[in-house]
Amino acid sequence: MLSEEKTGLPKGNSGLDFDTVDISSDGRYLVIIDQTLLPGKVEFLHLDKLEDMREAIYLLKVRGAPAIGVAAAIGLYIEASHIYENYGEDKTAFFSELKKAKLYLEAARPTAVNLKWALDRMYACAESMKESSVQDIAQGLKEEALRIKAEDIHVCSKLGEYGLTLLKKGQGILTHCNAGHLATVRYGTATAPIYLGHRQGYGFKVFADETRPLLQGARLTAFELSEAGIDVTLICDNMVSSVMQKGWVQTVITGCDRVAANGDAANKIGTSGVAVIAKHYGIPFYIAAPTSTIDFETETGEDIIIEERPWEEVKNMWYERPMAPEKASVYNPAFDVTDNSLISGIITEYGIAYPPFGESLKEIKKKMEIKL
Amino acid sequence: MLSEEKTGLPKGNSGLDFDTVDISSDGRYLVIIDQTLLPGKVEFLHLDKLEDMREAIYLLKVRGAPAIGVAAAIGLYIEASHIYENYGEDKTAFFSELKKAKLYLEAARPTAVNLKWALDRMYACAESMKESSVQDIAQGLKEEALRIKAEDIHVCSKLGEYGLTLLKKGQGILTHCNAGHLATVRYGTATAPIYLGHRQGYGFKVFADETRPLLQGARLTAFELSEAGIDVTLICDNMVSSVMQKGWVQTVITGCDRVAANGDAANKIGTSGVAVIAKHYGIPFYIAAPTSTIDFETETGEDIIIEERPWEEVKNMWYERPMAPEKASVYNPAFDVTDNSLISGIITEYGIAYPPFGESLKEIKKKMEIKL
Repeated sequence: MLSEEKTGLPKGNSGLDFDTVDISSDGRYLVIIDQTLLPGKVEFLHLDKLEDMREAIYLLKVRGAPAIGVAAAIGLYIEASHIYENYGEDKTAFFSELKKAKLYLEAARPTAVNLKWALDRMYACAESMKESSVQDIAQGLKEEALRIKAEDIHVCSKLGEYGLTLLKKGQGILTHCNAGHLATVRYGTATAPIYLGHRQGYGFKVFADETRPLLQGARLTAFELSEAGIDVTLICDNMVSSVMQKGWVQTVITGCDRVAANGDAANKIGTSGVAVIAKHYGIPFYIAAPTSTIDFETETGEDIIIEERPWEEVKNMWYERPMAPEKASVYNPAFDVTDNSLISGIITEYGIAYPPFGESLKEIKKKMEIKL
Repeated sequence: MLSEEKTGLPKGNSGLDFDTVDISSDGRYLVIIDQTLLPGKVEFLHLDKLEDMREAIYLLKVRGAPAIGVAAAIGLYIEASHIYENYGEDKTAFFSELKKAKLYLEAARPTAVNLKWALDRMYACAESMKESSVQDIAQGLKEEALRIKAEDIHVCSKLGEYGLTLLKKGQGILTHCNAGHLATVRYGTATAPIYLGHRQGYGFKVFADETRPLLQGARLTAFELSEAGIDVTLICDNMVSSVMQKGWVQTVITGCDRVAANGDAANKIGTSGVAVIAKHYGIPFYIAAPTSTIDFETETGEDIIIEERPWEEVKNMWYERPMAPEKASVYNPAFDVTDNSLISGIITEYGIAYPPFGESLKEIKKKMEIKL
C-alpha cells in the first residue's frame, strides 16, 4: 500500500478535481481518498493487496453505495491480474481464485447492495469470456470496471441536469448526510444539481446537517462543498426547523439508500424528520435516486429492514471521553424511512418522478427497460 | 474551594438524593455538583470565594435557569457574611460591597433572566432591612436564599403533580435537552411528572434527545434518569422521527426558557423541530413552564431574541480532533421558538394552560396575582 498525502486540494471548477475511486495510471492500484481522515487530512491510498481493499471498504475509508461498488469492481480486476501473474493461463485456478476473491470482498459490508451488485456483474463478465485466454479475461475485467465507473459518472451527471431544473438562482438548499462527490466517483447524487448550478453561477446557499452519529455532513459534505467554493453552512441536525422557520431554505435534496415501489424512501437516519419539518414549512423535499436504488420488489417502506448500529457510535465515538452514562440504553438505527407523502419528487437519471409514485416510478422503469 | 468526589450516587426513591444547589450545613459554602464533569465523574464543589462562584456559573458547572438563580442567591448570602466578617457593622461598606458582589455575579451570564431576578430579590431583601444590624441583614439574606430555594422545590413539585395528570402508565415520553433535577434544585421541570410517576409505578419509557451541540440530553438527562432507575434510552436528535414513527412515544414534555403572552415558547435549539414532528405523528407536545418563565410583556415568539453561540461548539467541542472543515460556516443558535400552534399545553405550578394560550395564560396570571 502506497500512500500519498496532500496538504491541500488542487481546485477544478467543479470542486474536488479527482475521482473518489480510481485506478492508477499504471493499472496496478485502486486509488481512493481515505474518508476516515477527512476533513483534517487529505490522504490518497494506493491499494493493491486484496486484504487492504477489503479493509478499506470495511472501515469506511471508501463509503457511499456507488463509490463502494466501483471500488470493489476495480479491486476485483486488480486481484484478477495478480491471479494471472501467479497462475498464468490455468483457467480453473483463475476462476476458483476469482470466486474466492469476490466472496471475500463481498463480505466486507454484507448489507451494501451495490457491493454485491458490482461484484456479481464483474464475475458474470469473466464467465461470459470463459472461452477467451485468462490474459484477455483480466483485460476484459479492467474494461468492465472502468465501464461501471463511467456509468456512475454518467448517472450522477444526469441527476445533476434533472435536479437543476427544480432549483432557482440564489436558493437556500438543505441536505442531510453525504450523498456527494465523496459517495460516488464524481458529482454525487444529491449534490450533483448543486455542483452543476454552482458552475453556472446559481449562487446557492447550502445548509449541511452534521448527521449524527457518524457526522458525514460535517466531515464530508461541508468539506467537499467548501472545497468547491460553494457557500455552505454547517448546522446540527436539530437546527433544521430553525433555519427553515427563518426562511433560509427553499429546497431540500437528500440521497437515498433504497426506494420502494410506492416511493417510500430509506435513507440515512434523520432524513424522515427533515422531510416532516420541510412539509410543515411548505418547502419541497426531493430525493436523488439513481435507478439502481429503486427496488421494485419492495412494495412499501414497511418492508425495508433498518440496520441498527453499535451504541458506542452515540456514546463514545469521536469524543475525548464518553458523553453518556453507562446505564442509559441507546437506540442507534442507521436509516429511517421517509413516507412517500412527504416526498415532492424523486430525481433519477431518467427524469423526475412525481406523486403518485406508484405510477411515476413505473414510467421510470419503462425507460430503464428501453435502455437495457 | 473544597471538592468532594463521589464514585457513585446513593439512591433515594426519587433518584439523585441531593439538591443540585445547596448551602453547606455550616452555612459557609455553596454546594453544587460540577455538571461539566458529568456523566463520567460525580464531583461536589464547596465554594466560598466570590470568584469561584462566579466562575461556576460562567463555566456552566451549575446551569439551568432555576438552579442558577438559587446558586446566585446562596452565593450572595455567603459573600454578605464575608463582608460582615471584614467590615463588621459598617453599614455603608456593607451595602457598597454587597452591590459590587451582586453586579459581579450578575455579569457571569448576562442573558440568564433568573440570575438577575434572584440577585435583585436578594438585594431588595437587604435594602428592606436597612434599619437592622448588618449581622441581622446577613441572617435575613440567608433566609431569603433558602426561601428562593424552597420555592423552586415547591414549583417543580407542583409541575410534577399537574404534569402527571397528562400521562398514563407505561407511556413512552420524549424529552429534549435537560429540564431535569440538575437544572433545578430538585425534580426538574419537564422531568418532574416523570419522577413523580416513577415513584408511583407508572413504568415510563423515556427517550432523551442527546441535544447537540452541548449534549445536555446525553450528559445530564440520561444520567439523572438512569440514576433514578428510570428506563431511559438515549437517541441522537435526528432519531426523533424514527422513534415516533415506530409508535414508541405517546407524549413529549420539554422545558422552556421563555414563554410569550401568546404561548410561543423559546427553548433549547431543536425543540421546535421536535414539536413539528410530534404534531405530524399526532403526539401531544407539552412544555413545563414555571410561571417565572412566562413573559407577559413579550407578545409573540418573534419578539424573542435568540442568542447565537460560538462555532467551536459545533466543529470542535468534546472531540479528539476537529470534525468539520475550517472553510465551512457554522450557524449555532442556542434556542429556537416553538409556535403556539404546535403546543398542546403549558404546564405551570398553577395548573395547565391549553390553547388558545392568549386566554389561558391570562387565567394563569390571575392565579399568580392572587398568590402574590
